[in-house]
Amino acid sequence: ARSYNITLLPGDGIGPEVVAVAKDEKLMGGSALDATGVPLPDETLSAAKDCDAVLLGAIGGYKWDNNEKHLKPETGLLQLRAGLGVFANLRPAAVLPQLVDASTLKKEVAEGVDIMVVRELTGGIYFGKPRGFGTNDKGEDTGFNTEVYSASEIDRIARVAFEVARKRRGKLCSVDKANVLEASMLWRRRVTALASEFPDIELSHMYVDNAAMQLVRNPKQFDTIVTNNIFGDILSDEASMITGSIGMLPSASVGESGPGLFEPIHGSAPDIAGQDKANPLATILSAAMLLRYGLGEENAAKRIELAVTETLNQGFRTGDIYSPGTTLVGCKQMGDEVLKTV
Amino acid sequence: ARSYNITLLPGDGIGPEVVAVAKDEKLMGGSALDATGVPLPDETLSAAKDCDAVLLGAIGGYKWDNNEKHLKPETGLLQLRAGLGVFANLRPAAVLPQLVDASTLKKEVAEGVDIMVVRELTGGIYFGKPRGFGTNDKGEDTGFNTEVYSASEIDRIARVAFEVARKRRGKLCSVDKANVLEASMLWRRRVTALASEFPDIELSHMYVDNAAMQLVRNPKQFDTIVTNNIFGDILSDEASMITGSIGMLPSASVGESGPGLFEPIHGSAPDIAGQDKANPLATILSAAMLLRYGLGEENAAKRIELAVTETLNQGFRTGDIYSPGTTLVGCKQMGDEVLKTV
Ligand SMILES: CC(C)[C@H](C(=O)O)[C@@H](O)C(=O)O
Ligand SMILES: CC(C)[C@H](C(=O)O)[C@@H](O)C(=O)O
Repeated sequence: ARSYNITLLPGDGIGPEVVAVAKDEKLMGGSALDATGVPLPDETLSAAKDCDAVLLGAIGGYKWDNNEKHLKPETGLLQLRAGLGVFANLRPAAVLPQLVDASTLKKEVAEGVDIMVVRELTGGIYFGKPRGFGTNDKGEDTGFNTEVYSASEIDRIARVAFEVARKRRGKLCSVDKANVLEASMLWRRRVTALASEFPDIELSHMYVDNAAMQLVRNPKQFDTIVTNNIFGDILSDEASMITGSIGMLPSASVGESGPGLFEPIHGSAPDIAGQDKANPLATILSAAMLLRYGLGEENAAKRIELAVTETLNQGFRTGDIYSPGTTLVGCKQMGDEVLKTV
Repeated sequence: ARSYNITLLPGDGIGPEVVAVAKDEKLMGGSALDATGVPLPDETLSAAKDCDAVLLGAIGGYKWDNNEKHLKPETGLLQLRAGLGVFANLRPAAVLPQLVDASTLKKEVAEGVDIMVVRELTGGIYFGKPRGFGTNDKGEDTGFNTEVYSASEIDRIARVAFEVARKRRGKLCSVDKANVLEASMLWRRRVTALASEFPDIELSHMYVDNAAMQLVRNPKQFDTIVTNNIFGDILSDEASMITGSIGMLPSASVGESGPGLFEPIHGSAPDIAGQDKANPLATILSAAMLLRYGLGEENAAKRIELAVTETLNQGFRTGDIYSPGTTLVGCKQMGDEVLKTV
């Protein structure tokens, strides 16, 4: 058996609980701010760059909400994504048969939903320059950001998305706002051009406002979605809520090479932190994605995923996915039950 | 009785059908492109500016989808919004008791939803400069847009939203991405500062990704939402789909003074155009908003809204909202039935 070097970043709020299997932990987020004055210490970034994969819990909390930008936990996360060059963020949103009732959508609409959102993660309006605060010609304060994509940034994320679609049901929907934004027009043009390299994939295009509607109207129409950083932020959260159990959903962020970043899609939930109430399954499933996409250990990934399914079949539920007739457990016990069945 | 001068812009696709009560029509959108070579002829803009209110059907269609930007129907719509200075777009999303089954959300989640999205309509990334296509330092093609807001642009839309919330249930949720974007940080700062002028309104803030989730999880938590142009585009469409009947939803766009622009939120639906299948109720309800917000004729607005409710109570339904046990009618008959009961 090979041994790997994994950097664990428990983060803030319920983060430390959900990654309590921790080994080689480094500080990041609000906890790093409190201890070192910056949200992503150099030491954390170099450890992350030097290891095989990074597992992150969650970051942020009320305490740091009004901090200036460079002192926000979120800024540390963006620096980490950029520092690792993980431009492709894979966010599955699948409705598990055991949890179909957890969705607010009607059973016949939610049942069988299985979407993968491929979100561009290191470009667009999150990182575009110029950005900042200014004064306009009337002497008024302004705030501004730049949405910008280059051809190669679009090509590389589109390529990942085509490949992902190929391993799934062969359908790719590219989401943009090409009827208004130049950045989206280039996006659509490049994605369309790449399609000839993937003749087996059925490519479609959809405007972002329509996509936000279609996810509610008929989420089953989607297989793989590819979109920019900000639209991906919005749509992947919407898609995840359609499953009814965001406490269950993992994510993987990968680059051309180097360690990937794996994290649950839920936030740090400061309101329930430290109460043993959080659902650790999203983090456990992120560890499975880490094995699959980060280390190429498909079998190990499958074993973890099966253990999660088995634990759900045994009826164990944390509060967020509890329904009458199942067994309510805390964060720690849920983790233990999965470990037992692995 | 006073008489008003209303400009009717039937537009494209099902647009002409849904505004078939037409009087003083002007060309805009794809139909204007075909006839005059531009999506918003000068004559249309001056007629619109000189009248009391503008009622628009819908614009766009496959035919013009690959046109260059300045030759897109959508560009005509953006020019019209800017030309009229209608910076505040009011988009109600209410679930009617008669249509609760049309929602894909569970009855207990959808029932009683009554949201008003106040979307900033003439600023942000839709209009920000610089924008266009360029080349980066690696010689690659780029596409870029600028998200920018000034203090006064934020203040005036926030003021409208606080006033709207005051006439509703007194709750205002401002949606932004202030954990990442400077434009959103200024937005949040200005909205927060204005709150002291509206001590009777309960103001909250939410990140846009969370808002996209919360609309699915528990839409009843929202009363009035205020947000920027692009987030408003996405969230208002998502909210409208939650009602299950976007063929029912009107919108009003108003400025400081001058004529307002009133339009259904649905698109031009080229796939069903000319088949007498479209639902005219969104346009009829837009006419009611025109009476209320455009002309201050509250009683006339109420009469139209009551006639729509009454027509639904009588069981008439177009295809998009049909359910067994009701009476399926076409676009024209639905309009006639409402007229009969006004
Ligand atoms: C915390 C925040 C900066 C982050 C983002 O917007 O990317 C989060 O919402 C996410 O989706 O991972
Ligand atoms: C047609 C398009 C330009 C428009 C927009 O994005 O504003 C539409 O989606 C809307 O919401 O009215």
